[in-house]
Amino acid sequence: MRLLPKLGRKFRRWKKFKKSPLLRKLDLLHETARKRAFLETSQDYISRLQAECDENVVTKLRDKTRDQFLYNGTFHEAVGKVLLTAQFFAMMPVRGVTAKHPSSLSFSWLHVRTCCCLLFITSTLIDLTLTIFKVLDGPISFNNIKPIIFRGCILLVCMTALNLARKWPELMMHWHDIEQDLPQYQTQKEKWRMAHTIHMVMLVGMMLSFAEHLLSMISAINYASVCNVTDDPIRNFFMLTNDEIFYFMGYSPPLALWGKLQNVYSTFIWNYMDVFVMIVSVGLAAKFRQLNDNLLKFKGMHMPPSYWSERRIQYRNICGLCGKMDNAISLITMVSFSNNLYFICVQLLRSLNQMPSVTHAVYFYFSLIFLIGRTLAVSLYAASVHDESRYSLRYLRCVPKDSWCSETKRFADEITSDLVALSGMKFFHLTRKLVLSVAGTIVTYELVLIQFHEDQNLWDCDQSNYS
Amino acid sequence: MRLLPKLGRKFRRWKKFKKSPLLRKLDLLHETARKRAFLETSQDYISRLQAECDENVVTKLRDKTRDQFLYNGTFHEAVGKVLLTAQFFAMMPVRGVTAKHPSSLSFSWLHVRTCCCLLFITSTLIDLTLTIFKVLDGPISFNNIKPIIFRGCILLVCMTALNLARKWPELMMHWHDIEQDLPQYQTQKEKWRMAHTIHMVMLVGMMLSFAEHLLSMISAINYASVCNVTDDPIRNFFMLTNDEIFYFMGYSPPLALWGKLQNVYSTFIWNYMDVFVMIVSVGLAAKFRQLNDNLLKFKGMHMPPSYWSERRIQYRNICGLCGKMDNAISLITMVSFSNNLYFICVQLLRSLNQMPSVTHAVYFYFSLIFLIGRTLAVSLYAASVHDESRYSLRYLRCVPKDSWCSETKRFADEITSDLVALSGMKFFHLTRKLVLSVAGTIVTYELVLIQFHEDQNLWDCDQSNYS
Amino acid sequence: MRLLPKLGRKFRRWKKFKKSPLLRKLDLLHETARKRAFLETSQDYISRLQAECDENVVTKLRDKTRDQFLYNGTFHEAVGKVLLTAQFFAMMPVRGVTAKHPSSLSFSWLHVRTCCCLLFITSTLIDLTLTIFKVLDGPISFNNIKPIIFRGCILLVCMTALNLARKWPELMMHWHDIEQDLPQYQTQKEKWRMAHTIHMVMLVGMMLSFAEHLLSMISAINYASVCNVTDDPIRNFFMLTNDEIFYFMGYSPPLALWGKLQNVYSTFIWNYMDVFVMIVSVGLAAKFRQLNDNLLKFKGMHMPPSYWSERRIQYRNICGLCGKMDNAISLITMVSFSNNLYFICVQLLRSLNQMPSVTHAVYFYFSLIFLIGRTLAVSLYAASVHDESRYSLRYLRCVPKDSWCSETKRFADEITSDLVALSGMKFFHLTRKLVLSVAGTIVTYELVLIQFHEDQNLWDCDQSNYS
Amino acid sequence: MRLLPKLGRKFRRWKKFKKSPLLRKLDLLHETARKRAFLETSQDYISRLQAECDENVVTKLRDKTRDQFLYNGTFHEAVGKVLLTAQFFAMMPVRGVTAKHPSSLSFSWLHVRTCCCLLFITSTLIDLTLTIFKVLDGPISFNNIKPIIFRGCILLVCMTALNLARKWPELMMHWHDIEQDLPQYQTQKEKWRMAHTIHMVMLVGMMLSFAEHLLSMISAINYASVCNVTDDPIRNFFMLTNDEIFYFMGYSPPLALWGKLQNVYSTFIWNYMDVFVMIVSVGLAAKFRQLNDNLLKFKGMHMPPSYWSERRIQYRNICGLCGKMDNAISLITMVSFSNNLYFICVQLLRSLNQMPSVTHAVYFYFSLIFLIGRTLAVSLYAASVHDESRYSLRYLRCVPKDSWCSETKRFADEITSDLVALSGMKFFHLTRKLVLSVAGTIVTYELVLIQFHEDQNLWDCDQSNYS
Repeated sequence: MRLLPKLGRKFRRWKKFKKSPLLRKLDLLHETARKRAFLETSQDYISRLQAECDENVVTKLRDKTRDQFLYNGTFHEAVGKVLLTAQFFAMMPVRGVTAKHPSSLSFSWLHVRTCCCLLFITSTLIDLTLTIFKVLDGPISFNNIKPIIFRGCILLVCMTALNLARKWPELMMHWHDIEQDLPQYQTQKEKWRMAHTIHMVMLVGMMLSFAEHLLSMISAINYASVCNVTDDPIRNFFMLTNDEIFYFMGYSPPLALWGKLQNVYSTFIWNYMDVFVMIVSVGLAAKFRQLNDNLLKFKGMHMPPSYWSERRIQYRNICGLCGKMDNAISLITMVSFSNNLYFICVQLLRSLNQMPSVTHAVYFYFSLIFLIGRTLAVSLYAASVHDESRYSLRYLRCVPKDSWCSETKRFADEITSDLVALSGMKFFHLTRKLVLSVAGTIVTYELVLIQFHEDQNLWDCDQSNYS
Repeated sequence: MRLLPKLGRKFRRWKKFKKSPLLRKLDLLHETARKRAFLETSQDYISRLQAECDENVVTKLRDKTRDQFLYNGTFHEAVGKVLLTAQFFAMMPVRGVTAKHPSSLSFSWLHVRTCCCLLFITSTLIDLTLTIFKVLDGPISFNNIKPIIFRGCILLVCMTALNLARKWPELMMHWHDIEQDLPQYQTQKEKWRMAHTIHMVMLVGMMLSFAEHLLSMISAINYASVCNVTDDPIRNFFMLTNDEIFYFMGYSPPLALWGKLQNVYSTFIWNYMDVFVMIVSVGLAAKFRQLNDNLLKFKGMHMPPSYWSERRIQYRNICGLCGKMDNAISLITMVSFSNNLYFICVQLLRSLNQMPSVTHAVYFYFSLIFLIGRTLAVSLYAASVHDESRYSLRYLRCVPKDSWCSETKRFADEITSDLVALSGMKFFHLTRKLVLSVAGTIVTYELVLIQFHEDQNLWDCDQSNYS
Repeated sequence: MRLLPKLGRKFRRWKKFKKSPLLRKLDLLHETARKRAFLETSQDYISRLQAECDENVVTKLRDKTRDQFLYNGTFHEAVGKVLLTAQFFAMMPVRGVTAKHPSSLSFSWLHVRTCCCLLFITSTLIDLTLTIFKVLDGPISFNNIKPIIFRGCILLVCMTALNLARKWPELMMHWHDIEQDLPQYQTQKEKWRMAHTIHMVMLVGMMLSFAEHLLSMISAINYASVCNVTDDPIRNFFMLTNDEIFYFMGYSPPLALWGKLQNVYSTFIWNYMDVFVMIVSVGLAAKFRQLNDNLLKFKGMHMPPSYWSERRIQYRNICGLCGKMDNAISLITMVSFSNNLYFICVQLLRSLNQMPSVTHAVYFYFSLIFLIGRTLAVSLYAASVHDESRYSLRYLRCVPKDSWCSETKRFADEITSDLVALSGMKFFHLTRKLVLSVAGTIVTYELVLIQFHEDQNLWDCDQSNYS
Repeated sequence: MRLLPKLGRKFRRWKKFKKSPLLRKLDLLHETARKRAFLETSQDYISRLQAECDENVVTKLRDKTRDQFLYNGTFHEAVGKVLLTAQFFAMMPVRGVTAKHPSSLSFSWLHVRTCCCLLFITSTLIDLTLTIFKVLDGPISFNNIKPIIFRGCILLVCMTALNLARKWPELMMHWHDIEQDLPQYQTQKEKWRMAHTIHMVMLVGMMLSFAEHLLSMISAINYASVCNVTDDPIRNFFMLTNDEIFYFMGYSPPLALWGKLQNVYSTFIWNYMDVFVMIVSVGLAAKFRQLNDNLLKFKGMHMPPSYWSERRIQYRNICGLCGKMDNAISLITMVSFSNNLYFICVQLLRSLNQMPSVTHAVYFYFSLIFLIGRTLAVSLYAASVHDESRYSLRYLRCVPKDSWCSETKRFADEITSDLVALSGMKFFHLTRKLVLSVAGTIVTYELVLIQFHEDQNLWDCDQSNYS
């Protein structure tokens, strides 16, 4: 009876020697790695226990001061402040965005935020109607319909955002469930990363848009002082920037104030829709990265099929989340993308004309570069979702021969054959290839423009469609 | 001897505990789901038995009144009335389209419908010849060949439809066989869905085309009254709308009537070819959805390989059907698609010119939007076949680890690698990507047009090629 | 002991009943099919034996008269006469093209055919040099370089063909080996099919090119009589069609004869290169079809893995052959394709101008349609290789569940992932998608041309670059 | 007991006969091949032992003279001299490039080469600033910004190369590790091949660029003598070629010398960046070929799974290396590619104008052809990496049925689904398809240019932006 274990041991040793030297070397490496990983995880476990213990004590004692600065790494937490800021500009009126848990989220038609939003939508609708009437009064051209496109996009995005607000609580709950299921980060820094990126994107985006708006105002003041219609400089300014209002009605300060408010809100939303797409992309890409970081930890080791099965299901869940979010925001994505393309083309068309003044030139080139930069940023952030989703494949390629099983095969096949990316209504997927084809199209258009350019004096004083 | 079951039980319990907690949780979920499914199916079975029993009784008693309103969910049944309507306009002369079973379908060269169809083809041929002679008499341009393209397409579609009519009985029998083999819907509402969509497509399509024809007539009357050649307003009208006839022959009421009939029929067929492609697409997509609905029902459960094998063969059958239908109608698809593209380009070219009157402007923009909407509708409905065919993959992704077998692998591989879609003579496949590339091409063309536009006065009174 | 077979039988029966009804039905069907197939093959075997016997007798008795009319279905045999015809026009000087077996093929630099070929290449080189000098003397434009492109292509193709001739014996032996290994056709009709298609392509191609050449001569005579430089009509004609010669040298009958010969040869080769690509495509597609016909015969039956392994190796061999042929002729393919594209664009550019006479118009439109038709024919025949190579997948999809093995999986994967098609130097592959993108490019070019067209009078009498 | 081996033998014989004749034939073939391979490897082993022995003796005796001429076939060794040459032109200041082992490589900010490089970057920055001010002083057009693009690219490449120099030692170590792991070549000729190709690329590239620079100088001298501003021909020359310097400052010989040096260095780097991309491509492709040569050796034989596993890991390593190198040089690739495209477009635009003199024409056409050739060479060399990486698939297709295992399947799947190629910042991958699409774009652009060309006199004397 004692023979058996002995024989077994011998057999195992023999099997070991039967292995190729390469495999043995690999195994040795992995053994060490596994041991290290085990040590790490046990240390993690201890430190986590201690941390939790510490936290419990600390939080009980210090009135949860520290807890406020602790990140749990969820997307809901990370976008809280961003959505709150947007709500000041009548976007996505959903309650509880800054709450700790997404279950506090709720939407109601009767809430004051919703009413504000509806008020703004009505106001934009009136503004759009006035603009359409004003533009249709003159000849229609690619350049002249700019205000219609601008206001139409704002209106469309506002309404989509309102609709999205209704689905937001459910979406965030789904997102939260999937997040809880993912392999968790151990350190605060890793948890804090996604939130940090999101806040930086919002901050930089808004700062630049603010700078652009200021420059646009300075440029308009400058322009108004040259082509002065009346003696009142303030009146001149408003009659220039809100010409669609005063085309039908006489000038009056309340109307001017309305117009100014409308402009500020529109500019914010015009920038915010791009920022929003970027933020969602950052969130989704971060989830894929969270999974990839776990795969990286066990790269090249002999993992059991259950490990791969678990990762595959998590991967599948994030893909599902991606699809859900894409369905919810793809209209915004599409509007943001086509809007940017249209504005770049219009600006490029104008770039060929002589600038009337230095202020204009500065504003114009700042605005053009900002526009191109923003478009590029949206494209690249959105493409990062796709890139991260493909990245997992790299770790599957390093699975050692003996651990290669039906589950790893299935996982690899699924990653290979699925196209996980944000899309514009499923008509196009946001990948890095798209950036090139869009850039190519713009360059070709610009080349054709340059080749057959005749100065059309788009900066004339008479010309009313200034903005 | 009693030991064995005990041991077996223990062994099974031990195996159960050996499973990962995730798997156990999954299994528990599926167990419940399976039980529910079983209960549902048994309830279904009972209710079906009862329903059949009821039916038998009811039908025997009430002279099959109820049976007339009961859908069996077949495509043949759903398109019956649509085809009948088309036959009033000399399209697809096949008998028995409204019969309950496709075996009643038959085609004969000697039937009165076939003769009508042949008569109309001859008449169109004459009209086309006259048009060609008239157009070749003047300078040829992209805009001037519009009537030739229009009538040529009508003729081509009519002849293809006649050819299709010969194959229709066989196609419908094949379709019926495949339908019978598919997992059946249990409720009347689900069976009624496809037929409803098809009827709505036909209705909306025909209503809009009727509205467009009316507007075109009003516009022509208006136009004729301005550029009056003779004193007779009716004569003016006919000499405008059927100028190809009266270019060679003197005016006479019978000829005018022929021209009018020809116009009405042509307009119907011009719209019907798009509607037809949409209807076939709806039918094919519905069959894929029927399969997907069954897959959804058992999503994530532990199904035996035979289940997947059966579904795979059903999927394969629908793919085969798709291929057969595509072979039969791809010429119509191609004509419909290229025809739409050409007309959109021509209309966009005209859109840059000043409209002669408000009636014209209304007609023109209605017609342009109708055209773009119709093209978009055809593209999206046709693309839905491809979308639905890919959708099954989603359910395969959720097959649990233990049920993943050679059959599921094969099924997934086949869906991934096959491109199931309607096509235009295999030169292009109708998917959502196509829509974007077509839209991109049109926008580029329009941009170039705008950039180098000089007013060409395409709305002149002298200009004879009005339509 | 007698129990065992009984038990076995029972067990087998029980296994039979355990199968799903669908499977049982399938099996029954296949059983019948297999029986039929077996009967067929045994009948085939007998009839083949008899046929061979008959043949032996017949050939011995009747001086092999019948043998001459019997096809063995090889590509070498099918292209024999085509290559012989080409050799009369100094193309591909390889000996033994009409021999029964490809082992009779040989190439030698000293053979009279090779010398003829080299002579023609030298003559073309001189002609090209004269043309270049003549064209560079005037302004260079897209239209003016036509003669250079024409003669340059001829020269390039001739030299490639000469190089191909050296490799031809080896290629044909390789082809022959692969053909022998393929499942053989049983009937004369099936064997004759490929040869028939090849002969028809050659015949129709050459007839049309002859008609085009005749028309071009009539048109040139007509043109020469209008813009008569001298009184001698023959001299006028030659000075028009071979202006590059008489631009530097005085007119003399021998030079004119040389020019005429050069023209006839060039025209033949210009058409032959397209025909050649078509013929090779027909040959390759036929080999794939031969394999597919065998797969069709056993479609849906339970075949052993060895059957699939054999087919896979045969498929792989044809793919290898495809690659080899592509390497050998891809330069000709590329020249043929780009040449056709260039000529279509030039002709379309000219099509916008007013024709000087009816003869011209007839010749011009015939030539344009011939050109487009030829390009389309080359594209579609070449694309058929790709289509046929993908077709095998369809039969693999119908392999029953029980016969699905590692070999079928591998076969299916290989067909899915490989792109088997003729190519233009690997830069583009000749598939049906290519046809669309090329057509799209041409249409776009034509649209831009039409939009910005100013009559450039390319048909002026003064203009020397007539051809 | 003696029965068993007998039975076993019988069984094996029976199994042998059960095999299909095809398989048996294949096996026979492979058996022979395997025997040959074994003999070869054993002979190799002996000869290697002898060679090593010889070497040991020889090196000890003859002061390692022979060793200097022996290649070890590493990339580090092959690029040593190329990098050294580049360092004379202030590119990539890394020490130890000509050492035998990459471990001798090091980078330091304080080294004299690094200082030279930083000096040149500062100098280029000043030159670029002057150029920008000069160009912005006049109207901006596609043609006028050429000097900015030129100098901007040089600056960007220099800085990227400096950054690359910091990572170079690590990259080369990684490369070396992977090289050591690959199946080694046995003969000196095979080892020498890659180094030879790299040296030829460098040599031919530099010779042509030198010729182009000489021609450009001759052309400038000629031009300066015609449009003489002052009486001093040398001054005229420098004021033409370095107009951005003397636009702001008065002429002085030291400045002229600086300008000349700047020009020479810029021209070298402008060519070197393309050569560098080619060299890295050659290196990567050679590594894939090394693997493929080993696969070719055992093509169609029965190899154990461990063989395939080893090859797969080696393949994976080269892919990883490819990715690493791509990350390191993709900015250079992108600059090189877009720079070439821009210059080709500008040159094509100029090609439509009348040349002022024969010298100009010669220089212009030489420069244009050189540019197109260089771009084509970069594209094709870079595409060869992708081609070679796909080539391994061909050998996997020939794996016999019995040796087809999970490892071969995995290997084939990985090759099929991965896209291994150099890229331009991941926006586009350098494959043969790219070449076609780029060529297509250029031809379309040229066609549009030709169609709407009006002579713009870009060669005027007044025009200051000569270069």
